[in-house]
Amino acid sequence: MPFDHFSIIESTLREGEQFSTAHFTTAQKLEMAHLLDEFGVEIIEMTSPVASPQSEADIRALTSAGLRARIVTHIRCNREDAARALDTGVHGLDIVIGTSPQLIQHSHGKSIRQIIDLMEEVTSWVRTQSPNITLRFSTEDTFRSREADLLRIYLAVAAIGTVDRLGVADTVGVATPLQVYNMVKQLVRLTGLDVEFHGHNDSGCAIANAAAALEAGATHIDTTVLGIGERNGITPLGGLVARLYTLDKRYVEKYHLPLLPRIDRMIADLCELEIPFSNYITGSSAFIHKAGIHAKAVLADPNTYEILRPEDFGLTREIAMGHKLMGWNTLKARSETLGLTLTDDTLKALTQEVKRRADTRALTIEEIDALLHDATTVGA
Amino acid sequence: MPFDHFSIIESTLREGEQFSTAHFTTAQKLEMAHLLDEFGVEIIEMTSPVASPQSEADIRALTSAGLRARIVTHIRCNREDAARALDTGVHGLDIVIGTSPQLIQHSHGKSIRQIIDLMEEVTSWVRTQSPNITLRFSTEDTFRSREADLLRIYLAVAAIGTVDRLGVADTVGVATPLQVYNMVKQLVRLTGLDVEFHGHNDSGCAIANAAAALEAGATHIDTTVLGIGERNGITPLGGLVARLYTLDKRYVEKYHLPLLPRIDRMIADLCELEIPFSNYITGSSAFIHKAGIHAKAVLADPNTYEILRPEDFGLTREIAMGHKLMGWNTLKARSETLGLTLTDDTLKALTQEVKRRADTRALTIEEIDALLHDATTVGA
Repeated sequence: MPFDHFSIIESTLREGEQFSTAHFTTAQKLEMAHLLDEFGVEIIEMTSPVASPQSEADIRALTSAGLRARIVTHIRCNREDAARALDTGVHGLDIVIGTSPQLIQHSHGKSIRQIIDLMEEVTSWVRTQSPNITLRFSTEDTFRSREADLLRIYLAVAAIGTVDRLGVADTVGVATPLQVYNMVKQLVRLTGLDVEFHGHNDSGCAIANAAAALEAGATHIDTTVLGIGERNGITPLGGLVARLYTLDKRYVEKYHLPLLPRIDRMIADLCELEIPFSNYITGSSAFIHKAGIHAKAVLADPNTYEILRPEDFGLTREIAMGHKLMGWNTLKARSETLGLTLTDDTLKALTQEVKRRADTRALTIEEIDALLHDATTVGA
Repeated sequence: MPFDHFSIIESTLREGEQFSTAHFTTAQKLEMAHLLDEFGVEIIEMTSPVASPQSEADIRALTSAGLRARIVTHIRCNREDAARALDTGVHGLDIVIGTSPQLIQHSHGKSIRQIIDLMEEVTSWVRTQSPNITLRFSTEDTFRSREADLLRIYLAVAAIGTVDRLGVADTVGVATPLQVYNMVKQLVRLTGLDVEFHGHNDSGCAIANAAAALEAGATHIDTTVLGIGERNGITPLGGLVARLYTLDKRYVEKYHLPLLPRIDRMIADLCELEIPFSNYITGSSAFIHKAGIHAKAVLADPNTYEILRPEDFGLTREIAMGHKLMGWNTLKARSETLGLTLTDDTLKALTQEVKRRADTRALTIEEIDALLHDATTVGA
């Protein structure tokens, strides 16, 4: 069944390193990997050992760190990169090659026939060197590639039988959920191999596209913490969790959800970023209810306007007060918190007073409380 | 044709006011409305006049501000709210009532039969008062409502013939693109009326859902600047623009795109927010390219890794330097900018030096430039 069996490939240590302000030390990578491991991500993807001496050393550090998560690295489709990667003792290789006309022209200049030959040569060689390593082969910029080219390549990969998993990558963030669904569904049907989805967020569909991939039978989704990556990034770990949780909480019960705020905070601190105010689950506003109608209903039953329970992530909700959209039920709840007894008529009159004053500027909680105390004294 | 004919209902002055830190003065609302009008949004939605005295005055201020955009207000389904709204001279009324079991229980307690009667009473009365006003009727929490209930209500609305537009609202941010597509398609087919989509972003699908609605024939999409609204908000104006632009730039050529950065900045300042680093188009990282492979290709042709042209929004791209993922083409481009002539072998050696040093910490642009200058001197 879709959604019931999938793995997260957490790529903060690869795609995330490609974010403008990401510069992780070995110690930071280890701390992050331990936290992600505790959260329960199944696979951690790291930068190619070819990138720099430290990149190579860091893969060795993580593979020997005693993590439950498997460590994989992301490499170009050539034997030299593969050899360097195998030498690190990594558990899996994620091989990628550009297939869109744009990337073929400016990245490697190879024909589809040459790409297929290269894929066969490299993946077969890896298999002779390491029969049990997990091997993924992905096209790059899949959704600007010609569908006929993609099928020639993927069907050749499947026929050769050297790889465990196919990758589809929305490298420039242009795909729609329906396109992702159709492509993944087709690959699952035609090859029977595992399928991984990697999606950028330039046009805001990275989460919807990841969910569409899973619905079509994808087995692996790439994420990074807060979505960091090239440009504005990819599917965020917390965003994918939010999406799956709202479809059916059981899909994410295998993860240790209360760790999510700490994970998001860690990356925000390391990259000197603010967690976006609108971030899924951990954004500052995620569980704040403001308009009177919303506040009233949430006070009666949070389920009215909350599809995610903050408690499940170790967080709390908040009812905003002191603004012109406030309803009297909010004031009533506050007076009860303060242990004050006020009639409904008094509370309604005070609400009008708050709204009138709030037209100039929002009232502080202290001002609200003073109003409530004063009214109690008057009434007493 | 889908996408060719749609209007944006810009709701920063209604849904946006429901964001935790949003407290707009009349002057700020007017400034914002003028900017949105200049950008080209077709409709501006404002908070109900019932909310506060200033809310009522602000509607009057905007309807007489000489804007090209139409001004509408968002009200509960009752005659008193409608009368107050009509009295302001507003161009349209957006009427809403909760229809999910959760909202029926905790918000108004009415049966579906009673909702239909109320809708008929209120919309018919509005029509007698103001035959030419644009009237929208929306269910609230549409995607947790029973489909049979929704159809009873919407088909009754259509049969009565009092409204111009139906609204579907993903109030808690739970809908998937396919669900939105199917619901909108059904309403378009069965009623022939205009259809509006309003979508919250709790599970990260607000943009994908808006695009799915348009694909199904929706005529109106609700947005707010930066997506501000209850909890983590709704479809952001810039995000919707990014999505439509990447599908076909012509869909958004009716808008004055270079104003977008100023619009996003204005709301961020007014609400004391940082624009999310990952924001569509205007986020700090939206047009930064980092990994060597990306940088090389973008230097040859930006289209390789950019689906949005920063120039179209009055912005510029940036190639990140001084990090361990840097490629030698980045250094070559920098040396050319500086007017230095270095051999490819020298540039490749310098690149290795940068990567080695960057394993400890990222190099500044000044350090990079010094390396390039020193190498030129040595070579000379």
